[in-house]
Amino acid sequence: MQRVAIIGLGLIGGSLGLALKKAVPGQVEITGHDHDRRAISQALKLQAIDRGERNILETVRDADLVVIATPILAIRDVMKEIGSHLGRGCVVTDTGSTKAQIMAWARELLPSTVDFVGGHPMAGKEVSGVEHADADLFQGATYCICPSPLASQQAVESIRGLAQRIGAVPYFPDPAEHDSLVAAVSHLPIILASALVSVATTSQSWREMSRLASSGFKSSTRLASTDPSMSAGIFLTNREALEHWIDRFINELEGYKELLKADEEELENSLARVREARERWLDGKETWDVDDRPEIPNVSQQLTGLFVGERLARRSRDLLKLQLSRSDDMRRKRRDDDEGEETRG
Amino acid sequence: MQRVAIIGLGLIGGSLGLALKKAVPGQVEITGHDHDRRAISQALKLQAIDRGERNILETVRDADLVVIATPILAIRDVMKEIGSHLGRGCVVTDTGSTKAQIMAWARELLPSTVDFVGGHPMAGKEVSGVEHADADLFQGATYCICPSPLASQQAVESIRGLAQRIGAVPYFPDPAEHDSLVAAVSHLPIILASALVSVATTSQSWREMSRLASSGFKSSTRLASTDPSMSAGIFLTNREALEHWIDRFINELEGYKELLKADEEELENSLARVREARERWLDGKETWDVDDRPEIPNVSQQLTGLFVGERLARRSRDLLKLQLSRSDDMRRKRRDDDEGEETRG
Repeated sequence: MQRVAIIGLGLIGGSLGLALKKAVPGQVEITGHDHDRRAISQALKLQAIDRGERNILETVRDADLVVIATPILAIRDVMKEIGSHLGRGCVVTDTGSTKAQIMAWARELLPSTVDFVGGHPMAGKEVSGVEHADADLFQGATYCICPSPLASQQAVESIRGLAQRIGAVPYFPDPAEHDSLVAAVSHLPIILASALVSVATTSQSWREMSRLASSGFKSSTRLASTDPSMSAGIFLTNREALEHWIDRFINELEGYKELLKADEEELENSLARVREARERWLDGKETWDVDDRPEIPNVSQQLTGLFVGERLARRSRDLLKLQLSRSDDMRRKRRDDDEGEETRG
Repeated sequence: MQRVAIIGLGLIGGSLGLALKKAVPGQVEITGHDHDRRAISQALKLQAIDRGERNILETVRDADLVVIATPILAIRDVMKEIGSHLGRGCVVTDTGSTKAQIMAWARELLPSTVDFVGGHPMAGKEVSGVEHADADLFQGATYCICPSPLASQQAVESIRGLAQRIGAVPYFPDPAEHDSLVAAVSHLPIILASALVSVATTSQSWREMSRLASSGFKSSTRLASTDPSMSAGIFLTNREALEHWIDRFINELEGYKELLKADEEELENSLARVREARERWLDGKETWDVDDRPEIPNVSQQLTGLFVGERLARRSRDLLKLQLSRSDDMRRKRRDDDEGEETRG
């Protein structure tokens, strides 16, 4: 029986509990903690955790794995509080949306007797809170893993195994690289959605506008409903990258203003190229999800440990690389096919 | 039997055909035309039209109602072509996403013996083409109606009745006002989605980024998959309003860059206010959809004509006003309730 402690019972913490219990039933005992006692009750009711614990130090006592799933800025406080109470060899991970700052906190606040392996499952919902937890939230999602330089290979493989068992696809970016990449594709979109809500709702015509706003406005502003404390944590720990991408986006908008002066054909061609780029991504996503994942259960079936066997530790990293490059080949092939079709069409 | 001609068998034209046949079965005969013969075949197969016609002039011969559902820029050509072939008293409408330019074309190109009533159903999907047509596409949607100053009251009521019968909520903005409002809530979002795709996919790190882009990036860029010829038509006929809103949006982004320098509390409070504004809109939308619509079938049931009876013509405009103000009261009330809850929470 593996003892898992989940600190922070929101959408991600709760979903992780449900997903783990579904993936390895009867093999984990999950203790959950949240500063909000209603979240603990709710998590217990949903059976996302086996045991609720109001005392954070009791939560991590004898834990084999500690998952910190609080909003980003609370992660530092949690590390400070639990650091000296973690057992030797305990594996600590988190689910924060930025990684460089969190890795620095772990280096500063966790003892060298534990292994820190940062994590970031690329999954979410518009709604927050444990009541929306979903055992299948991580299915097909990319799971970023950033091991501390001092973490043991076994600890890294445990987190990789965990990601795979809950249906996600592990990916190993450098922390700074991770933060810059997600600034563009995850954090900038939150700013854009929020700014669109700001600019529309503060307009003198908002009352009339609100009647005409429909599904397009709804999907464009979906991310403005992200939990504010989560967004604030993201923005404060990834400010530099975000500023960079906001500036690039403003530049792009200036380009679009120029484009509006073009003739019909040029405008239509430009927009068609953008649509194509998005659809290529959507196709690629499917390839990534569908073609890579079938390999993973095969790997997992051979595992001797709960999440991963040590003898596979060295092999599986190479295997993942192989899968990725194969997936790229397929993506490239599919893109070529698409382009062929367009020429025919 | 009312003879309806639909010119342009895409998502909107096809959905309108399906919705009409569902709403008033056996009471309309729909002839459909498209420059693409495959769209005609598909529309026939889906039974969105009763008869397909390759000749546009044959399509409008003896029609009581002509719906022009082509991309915006083609509307001008269609008007030019059919103008002198329309029967006296024929009602002409369109489904274009901008209105001022289209009203000007109608004034210039349609004879004074027909009644033009511009229309814009605020409904759509990410996908285009008649194969995605849906009889329920307009359920609960706002349907903007801009009558030509010369249109008869009966023609206006016909289009209002049509909107109501297919489940939509009629709304009567001034054409210029319409264009400015939709520039902010419909057209700017297309630019933002497209610019986000542009900025991300042209980045040197797109290959890595694309792996981390998930549901947030997908919903934020959904509108970048809008049919390019539709977007081009929108942008070219609403350029001034769009430029205005792009500038306002850039200003807003500069404000967000400043906000990123704020402390946690200020940042979180600002984001919470934005989320609240969006959720108030979502709540309001529901009120608007749910509370206004039940009235409409009651009105429609009393209609003596197919879409609307003349004796209700004067009354129903006042009725609509009443519904709108009642809906506002409910919205206001619900907002007050929400705020009460937050104070308690």
